[in-house]
Amino acid sequence: MTTETSPTVEIVEVAPRDGLQNEQVHVSTAVKAELVRQALAAGLRRMEVTSFVNPQRVPQMADAEALMQDVRTYPGLTAIGLAMNRRGFDRAVAAGCDEVNMVVVASESLSRRNQGMATADSIAIIREVAAAAREVGTPISVTIAASFGCPFEGEVPEGRVLAILEEVLPLAPLEIAFADTIGCGVPSQVGSLVRQARALAPGMRLRCHFHNTRNTGLANVAAAVEAGARTIDASLGGTGGCPFAPGATGNVATEDVAWMLHRMGISTGVDLEEAVETAKWLSDALGKPMAGGVAKAGLFPKEAALGGCVAVA
Amino acid sequence: MTTETSPTVEIVEVAPRDGLQNEQVHVSTAVKAELVRQALAAGLRRMEVTSFVNPQRVPQMADAEALMQDVRTYPGLTAIGLAMNRRGFDRAVAAGCDEVNMVVVASESLSRRNQGMATADSIAIIREVAAAAREVGTPISVTIAASFGCPFEGEVPEGRVLAILEEVLPLAPLEIAFADTIGCGVPSQVGSLVRQARALAPGMRLRCHFHNTRNTGLANVAAAVEAGARTIDASLGGTGGCPFAPGATGNVATEDVAWMLHRMGISTGVDLEEAVETAKWLSDALGKPMAGGVAKAGLFPKEAALGGCVAVA
Repeated sequence: MTTETSPTVEIVEVAPRDGLQNEQVHVSTAVKAELVRQALAAGLRRMEVTSFVNPQRVPQMADAEALMQDVRTYPGLTAIGLAMNRRGFDRAVAAGCDEVNMVVVASESLSRRNQGMATADSIAIIREVAAAAREVGTPISVTIAASFGCPFEGEVPEGRVLAILEEVLPLAPLEIAFADTIGCGVPSQVGSLVRQARALAPGMRLRCHFHNTRNTGLANVAAAVEAGARTIDASLGGTGGCPFAPGATGNVATEDVAWMLHRMGISTGVDLEEAVETAKWLSDALGKPMAGGVAKAGLFPKEAALGGCVAVA
Repeated sequence: MTTETSPTVEIVEVAPRDGLQNEQVHVSTAVKAELVRQALAAGLRRMEVTSFVNPQRVPQMADAEALMQDVRTYPGLTAIGLAMNRRGFDRAVAAGCDEVNMVVVASESLSRRNQGMATADSIAIIREVAAAAREVGTPISVTIAASFGCPFEGEVPEGRVLAILEEVLPLAPLEIAFADTIGCGVPSQVGSLVRQARALAPGMRLRCHFHNTRNTGLANVAAAVEAGARTIDASLGGTGGCPFAPGATGNVATEDVAWMLHRMGISTGVDLEEAVETAKWLSDALGKPMAGGVAKAGLFPKEAALGGCVAVA
């Protein structure tokens, strides 16, 4: 596996938003702020802190403004707020977010279910928000959700994702992300989409967002990085999941992604020992075992005490 | 990701041996035979059925002969027996194994701890066994354990693994396997080793064996296949683990590997629905949750009922 440009990948920490939003245990604003503080101390400087959506629909994120009030002054933090519409964007800016992440869903069925509108209407909203973003000077990124498959439609054609990319490109977002919302992507698919996107948008920074639902999370990260993605979303401890699918794992674990990339000679700026400590702390706070592997198994090659478990191959 | 030759990968099912050997619950010979039967029905025709080692050291495998007695007549089964020495090889042949898998450990420290001898002595034994194998007409394969790292020494230089490969090559084994015994490998490492091995041994069939300890299992499978490995060891349900590391996961799950490869356009001959059913049955028999993801999350794109868990990206 070779990386074409500089061997550096940025990890966007998403545990405070995508992680906690999908956990059954709701945590206090103070715990969220402590999570942000610890993640920042572990070198995770860019973070999806919260989302500015309807608190009736997503009660876990009802404290968005209060949390931003607590963390906006943390030195060195680039705080991302997630928004679905202009109102969310305005709230995020007012709350002091450094960036706002907008979402468009690649499949019509999921777009109507999740955003309550057609994909084209979602893009129209992002266009309006992009204009507002230029005015106020707060940049937006755009996530294309369900880029690798839809729970209702099944396959999402690559051409459809690329067509959305082409509609979003003229809005000059900071970054465009491909999200494997339901964890159905495989490396060949990821590599192909990222390569096609780079060909269409050579100057655009590409981000990928994977869930480890079917254990392909790190395989997809490796494929994305090899194909030229330079930002990966990840969640400390692999926090997250699906309230309707017990046992399903969440986002790829930050410490697993960083461990793998470091061992491949790619730097992330993450302090692995700190990240592991935070993953363990978060796991305790949520009262559940971690989905991440490195925090359980240890930071090879640092640790050397697996002893008898290797007996006879 | 591209595959250089035919898009077919063989999965060797290792749950009956490597999987069950590392489970805390010991299962009866009848349950093992039923596992072999079900796996075979799911299209897993080549299987590591048991190991012929000292029953004092590995009591889970004390029923090796009895199990082979039960399964050797299953039509279409290629039964592999694991052996550490000439005595084990002779037992495996007498029990009716179709192949015998021999092991050499790439790191001296682990070789002395696990095999009780130096790597060179292990190779000498394999040389003797290879001669016996030619006489009796039962082929051997050779697994190079700790190919990606050692729990005692840390890094295992690629050159050391390749030097062992070159010593084993003249013995003309059926296949040479690289095993990530403790689950510390990463895709760049796997790709490099497999490519170097192919350059040194263009005609040799290469197999890889990964544990998902740090969630890199499927990433390593993808890298191995991309680099030209044509056989992958896997265990139904991700069975296995490490008695000294609670929570550690076992081998890559057969159904996860097959699902990913199929979705990448690579056939394995595995019937995924049957494999998932067997993984669930095995999980029940062991009384523990599965490490595999596909059996929990469902066979996308077949299943389309994840519903609300995708809410707001």
